[in-house]
Amino acid sequence: MFRTLLTAAAVSALLAGSAHAQDVKTAEGLRDKALLDRTAWDITEDLTTNIGPRLVGSPAMERAKDWGAAKFKALGFTNIKVEEFAKPSWTRGEESAELVGPYPMKLGIVGLGRTVPTPAGGIEADVALFKTYADLIVAPESAVKGKIVVITQPMVKAQDGAGYGVAGISRRAGPTEAAKKGALALLIRSISTSDSTVPHTGVTAFGDGVVTIPAAAIGVPEAEQLERLAAKNTLRIKLKLASTVDAKDVAWNISGEIKGSEKPDEVIVIGGHLDSWDVGTGALDDATGVAITTAAAKLIGDLPKHPKRTIRVVMFGSEESGGSSEAYLEAHKNEVSKIVLAGESDTGADRIYSLKLPAGGGAHPLMKTAAGVLAPLKIYVNQAPAAHGGADIAGLEQAGVPSIELEQDATRYFDYHHTADDTLNKVRPDELAQNVAAWASFLYLVADSDIDFRALKAAAPAASH
Amino acid sequence: MFRTLLTAAAVSALLAGSAHAQDVKTAEGLRDKALLDRTAWDITEDLTTNIGPRLVGSPAMERAKDWGAAKFKALGFTNIKVEEFAKPSWTRGEESAELVGPYPMKLGIVGLGRTVPTPAGGIEADVALFKTYADLIVAPESAVKGKIVVITQPMVKAQDGAGYGVAGISRRAGPTEAAKKGALALLIRSISTSDSTVPHTGVTAFGDGVVTIPAAAIGVPEAEQLERLAAKNTLRIKLKLASTVDAKDVAWNISGEIKGSEKPDEVIVIGGHLDSWDVGTGALDDATGVAITTAAAKLIGDLPKHPKRTIRVVMFGSEESGGSSEAYLEAHKNEVSKIVLAGESDTGADRIYSLKLPAGGGAHPLMKTAAGVLAPLKIYVNQAPAAHGGADIAGLEQAGVPSIELEQDATRYFDYHHTADDTLNKVRPDELAQNVAAWASFLYLVADSDIDFRALKAAAPAASH
Repeated sequence: MFRTLLTAAAVSALLAGSAHAQDVKTAEGLRDKALLDRTAWDITEDLTTNIGPRLVGSPAMERAKDWGAAKFKALGFTNIKVEEFAKPSWTRGEESAELVGPYPMKLGIVGLGRTVPTPAGGIEADVALFKTYADLIVAPESAVKGKIVVITQPMVKAQDGAGYGVAGISRRAGPTEAAKKGALALLIRSISTSDSTVPHTGVTAFGDGVVTIPAAAIGVPEAEQLERLAAKNTLRIKLKLASTVDAKDVAWNISGEIKGSEKPDEVIVIGGHLDSWDVGTGALDDATGVAITTAAAKLIGDLPKHPKRTIRVVMFGSEESGGSSEAYLEAHKNEVSKIVLAGESDTGADRIYSLKLPAGGGAHPLMKTAAGVLAPLKIYVNQAPAAHGGADIAGLEQAGVPSIELEQDATRYFDYHHTADDTLNKVRPDELAQNVAAWASFLYLVADSDIDFRALKAAAPAASH
Repeated sequence: MFRTLLTAAAVSALLAGSAHAQDVKTAEGLRDKALLDRTAWDITEDLTTNIGPRLVGSPAMERAKDWGAAKFKALGFTNIKVEEFAKPSWTRGEESAELVGPYPMKLGIVGLGRTVPTPAGGIEADVALFKTYADLIVAPESAVKGKIVVITQPMVKAQDGAGYGVAGISRRAGPTEAAKKGALALLIRSISTSDSTVPHTGVTAFGDGVVTIPAAAIGVPEAEQLERLAAKNTLRIKLKLASTVDAKDVAWNISGEIKGSEKPDEVIVIGGHLDSWDVGTGALDDATGVAITTAAAKLIGDLPKHPKRTIRVVMFGSEESGGSSEAYLEAHKNEVSKIVLAGESDTGADRIYSLKLPAGGGAHPLMKTAAGVLAPLKIYVNQAPAAHGGADIAGLEQAGVPSIELEQDATRYFDYHHTADDTLNKVRPDELAQNVAAWASFLYLVADSDIDFRALKAAAPAASH
């Protein structure tokens, strides 16, 4: 004998009248199938192994573009598009740093993304060391001028990755602020939650009209060593950075669709980014984001009947240096009103622990059903509304597209982020699969519904924003 | 009111008549004081920060030698000696490796210690990849000749570090065996228990009459990447290694003593090694060994009355490349019969979990007392006799000196061993202190006794060996 049991989520759905029981059953089936599906792992392994690191403008990124379109095709996606946009490239050259005084010691470094180079002979100067970014800001020009500034501010480890924004200012604004005070170069403690020597790159930015200076990151133990030495010594460092730029380079956003069965012009846009830094193989950042969203949509595409709305997966082509988001909005500005929801997976592949919905979305019966489907995956629906779904969908968000966040546990993510250690062996297959399960089941419920997050947001009380 | 309680160990000692109750109380006092003492931390921080990496033959090693003698003096040691011996030095130059095909990708490497250099233009060749050292051994010459051999055998993580000897053969004998078959160069997966990109160096050796080839280590993710790529592609790698040697260089064993109060010519020799690899700052390997043994002896030296026998701490001067052990034996061959026990701390600074005694020692009542003193530190007396107390005391052991092993938990040690990540931030202060507590309390008991391990060993049944 064999009995069909209604799950708690299905019962809840029936009582709420929010989703057909069949939809809940399908979502749960997708969820459970995803936990045993290896598509996301295969995509991650394939991209990191056979393409490798893929910096915008590199030959590898061009191979990645072809790989992405071929992958969509092989997995049964339709309406595959490769949308080109202009993106000046930046290519790293040889880099080195050495502590010259009080004694000679090599310092492992990585230049910040898009840093200017040093003169070919390098820069050698005394050090002005600041334990926080704030210390640099309040320092008099006389303490900085003509020196190599070192900022050793550490990053807080947090499940939601909140430490990144706080510590990351040293990387984003540090070069500008140090340059304003006449510094010759900047070294920052890596924006890292690990205790490793492996340095973290990441894009830096310079303000308009500010003299730019070369900037690089050192490992955590080296930053601590310099702090200890600086307490009793004048430090002197020699730094060499080389790089080249090509203003005429291009990048691509690549997309494929699982076409909706009833309202194909209503589109859910999800994705990750295909580009990576040139160190490591961009496994957690963001081969897994590409893999999770592609695998989730593929599972839905394999259903006997597609959900009502179209699910479009985008492999964004220039997240690390910026540009994908603006390019995507520009290419799709005429269909913005038909994009019913957007989401991005770009915080590695550790387990999802929370779902953040557009403001007002949490009260909708379908979302209560979704909470039931996600609960066995140990995901709760966060009371805070989604603030920002990802760098590549920021343009869509600004144009009014509602977005979700399926929040990944970032406790470990910033140990490896933007380093040579962002490699396949840091991906945990079971947690990767949990991500796919969450995306597939949640996406299906929304895609097979009429839920209108824009209207819910408009109706939501201001206090919930 | 205040009462003096006899501890279990003290009661046991009294019953066994093995040690004066006062001795047990003193040993327990040393143990408990050591847990709160920061001498070992200060030594470790000072050596790694103010001397830094200290390869044999480097200016830093010469500074370390002076540092060691000054440290002994500052801590109240007497009979301080700096014993020079001949040691050819080897100095690393620029090193790089790149995967050339199937696509270009930089490979982080570190040359094995004392490797020969490549020609200045480097070596570029197709790859013969072997997943184990055994596979290389059985491979026909035709599969190896003219190629760069890559061995990707992983290392087993184990509390007692047993995986090191097994996997380490790729480093020790790999270059010889690959050269015999006509290989142009060797790359090995780092002898590592971590999942990190940071490569591990360590000395390699060449057999007499064998053509030597350049040899380096790659990180764990790179080794796994090459394995995956080699399954479907012919790999091509370009390798550059530079180094210089100086046949006339010297090294030093530095020692200081806590002089015995009654039998000063009976000596216990303990220590760690002062030299380190040139990557990292030699924190776990072996600043902490120097720190643990020095701090333990210093605590004993601070007692109102020194124990009967002399405790001598040696900072060995060339463990990584070999030479300290032979030099120490040569310089002390005339006093070998008076060295009653030897021990070395050279597996980092994680907690000690086991004490191994010379064969026959475990049955002695004093050692049963010692077991009681060590038990609160979560250390048990291992039934297996000490096999080998450390590389630097191997010469003494071969000359008949009994040795102990205070076995440190090596689970984490080979994550960092011989890498740029062997830095102060990997040392756990509480576990470092536990080490000092064990050494100080155990040493005191032996030093204030007449226990004769040589005689016990001679009397022990063969089965216990």
